[in-house]
Amino acid sequence: MAEEFDTDKYPHINQGLAGIVAFSTTKSFIDGQKGELIYAGYTIETLAENASFEEVCFLLWNDRLPNQQELDDLTRKLQQSRSLPEPVLNYIRDTSDTAEPMSVLRTAVSMLADSHEVDTDKAKVFRINKAISITAKMPTIIAAFDRIRNGKDIIEPLDSKSTAFNFLYMLNGEEPGEQAEKTMDLCLILHAEHGMNASTFTGRAICSTEADMFSAVTGSIGALKGPLHGGANQAVMNMLLEIEDKGDDPVEYIKERLAGKEKVMGFGHRVYKTMDPRARLLRKESKRLSKETGHEELYNWSEAILETMKSEKDIDPNVDFFSATVYYSMGIKPDLYTCIFAASRVSGWTGHYIEQAENNRLVRPRALYTGEKNLDWVPVEDR
Amino acid sequence: MAEEFDTDKYPHINQGLAGIVAFSTTKSFIDGQKGELIYAGYTIETLAENASFEEVCFLLWNDRLPNQQELDDLTRKLQQSRSLPEPVLNYIRDTSDTAEPMSVLRTAVSMLADSHEVDTDKAKVFRINKAISITAKMPTIIAAFDRIRNGKDIIEPLDSKSTAFNFLYMLNGEEPGEQAEKTMDLCLILHAEHGMNASTFTGRAICSTEADMFSAVTGSIGALKGPLHGGANQAVMNMLLEIEDKGDDPVEYIKERLAGKEKVMGFGHRVYKTMDPRARLLRKESKRLSKETGHEELYNWSEAILETMKSEKDIDPNVDFFSATVYYSMGIKPDLYTCIFAASRVSGWTGHYIEQAENNRLVRPRALYTGEKNLDWVPVEDR
Repeated sequence: MAEEFDTDKYPHINQGLAGIVAFSTTKSFIDGQKGELIYAGYTIETLAENASFEEVCFLLWNDRLPNQQELDDLTRKLQQSRSLPEPVLNYIRDTSDTAEPMSVLRTAVSMLADSHEVDTDKAKVFRINKAISITAKMPTIIAAFDRIRNGKDIIEPLDSKSTAFNFLYMLNGEEPGEQAEKTMDLCLILHAEHGMNASTFTGRAICSTEADMFSAVTGSIGALKGPLHGGANQAVMNMLLEIEDKGDDPVEYIKERLAGKEKVMGFGHRVYKTMDPRARLLRKESKRLSKETGHEELYNWSEAILETMKSEKDIDPNVDFFSATVYYSMGIKPDLYTCIFAASRVSGWTGHYIEQAENNRLVRPRALYTGEKNLDWVPVEDR
Repeated sequence: MAEEFDTDKYPHINQGLAGIVAFSTTKSFIDGQKGELIYAGYTIETLAENASFEEVCFLLWNDRLPNQQELDDLTRKLQQSRSLPEPVLNYIRDTSDTAEPMSVLRTAVSMLADSHEVDTDKAKVFRINKAISITAKMPTIIAAFDRIRNGKDIIEPLDSKSTAFNFLYMLNGEEPGEQAEKTMDLCLILHAEHGMNASTFTGRAICSTEADMFSAVTGSIGALKGPLHGGANQAVMNMLLEIEDKGDDPVEYIKERLAGKEKVMGFGHRVYKTMDPRARLLRKESKRLSKETGHEELYNWSEAILETMKSEKDIDPNVDFFSATVYYSMGIKPDLYTCIFAASRVSGWTGHYIEQAENNRLVRPRALYTGEKNLDWVPVEDR
């Protein structure tokens, strides 16, 4: 049996693996027609209304919600795991201020492996402890790099409070209000898990070689960095800021882009054929927040763009479209948006790692060879 | 259209994506029945006999062999790109001596991104220049870490000589002989490319989000680190050393492992149904080298193990089986074997990156959801 095939025998290439079912999972379910998203049994609306990010982490790692003692235990472990090892702090201080935040996050998470013992224990509890350790440290990495590149001191994490609270505290150097913490917590919940997207899939492919969790999460961060995946919310914000800079009318701006066959970021999704349920939840948050923080204009533009895209192209916004204005209203720089996405999605990535490791098969698809065969060697002087 | 499906509607899960054609490629062709491997038109035997690793790099990036000027140009660029940026050297000096070499390689390659300008230029020449930069630096990273963890000074790369020569020179602190350079060059050629394996596939999946080449190669290193993929040659050597330590008879040792249903590393392959052509080439090299360096016993054991596996299980050795003894005979520590694999395979990974980037579609397969749906929220105190 050949690995790479002749075109005439095996003509079908599954471009982008679209429609190919690669794994079974208990982590999430998406109904793209209905605009429905479920994490391990619970609709995203139920979780957005009731859960904390910490409860969602437990859910994605254990496929059930924690009882009070389990939740307290997880919260304490996360709080105790937020500090970064010295070599990681040295790297963050040492590297270029102009480094891309997602690159720094990828490197720092990869480096965390050096401070962990190489564990050969395959028990689920060890895997969950590693997931806790990585999840706890990602906001610290992002905040530390943002402080350093702006010439500020790194803020040590608190050994109390939620992930959302600590993240905003380490980023801004002051304790966030209750509403800001709640909004950040909602954003972390909404981005935590989303089926077999490219970064989650990458992590499972890496896991399938029996590589460690640091390798898998590092690979996932790299995949999320791409503008076609996690980079979209940053692109949405840049678009809104460009409209503001130029003093353009947003509707005209969008129509021009469409006429020029340019992509409008934050719209459409391979999965959803109606509005992404996360966009629906963030739309409300964006409206409320932009009013409170005096960025109402940005929200109004978003709505005008949404209407234009619907009437011109019948395309709905995705999660990136409203998360951009929500983060902007909270004073977070656009080039950190994808990092926040990663700090949330790591809960899903590690949940998938645990699931893959427990029922593994090496991921090794095929490629169709379309090149030459059996060419004769020609010495370099005769080429 | 739903992303995750109900079992009864879509019962087929493509475990490990076995048999699924994911891409077309001009990089390599494998005929697993005949034991044939082709890189961009040339059989592995032709390349092993005639080419240098530098020519193979050019071939995998350009789909043709270089003329003299092009080869000189590539060789010079590689020579000029071997030195590491200061933050990467600082990291290598700073991290734990007990860190895993593949983890250090993954982190250091990820860190290289910070020293490169974020290029928005999509021209092929820029991508090839980035591939040159990464390929040139990987041996330097591996050698620097190995020196540092052994309390030795880092050896600066030469701005002359081949990749193979420099690698051995930086590792050992002395210039290698002609035969040692040739053997290392052969190993680099044989590991450069091999179809849609897990690490190459991971790199293409990361590339498909339009993430940069550093992200893709970092992910590939993580995938290669797994014992089911690149970690196998180290496991083969550890097995041979265990036989030596215990004074066991290798044939009895293997029979015991088989009787205990334990895996014997270095045998079998999802693709090859006969002897891996790379194993055939390395078998000769292993025989010659182990005689020259006084490790003939190890070679004889390898042959005995090979015969036992053939007669007991009808399984042939793969590339990892003989590369282990070749590296060992050259005095290289077993935990660096997978790093050498990576330092070679980066040529194929980057070749695939360039190919994917030029004809891209986002990789996003599906998963079958097997969990619960629409569970009701229960407050934490009632759980």
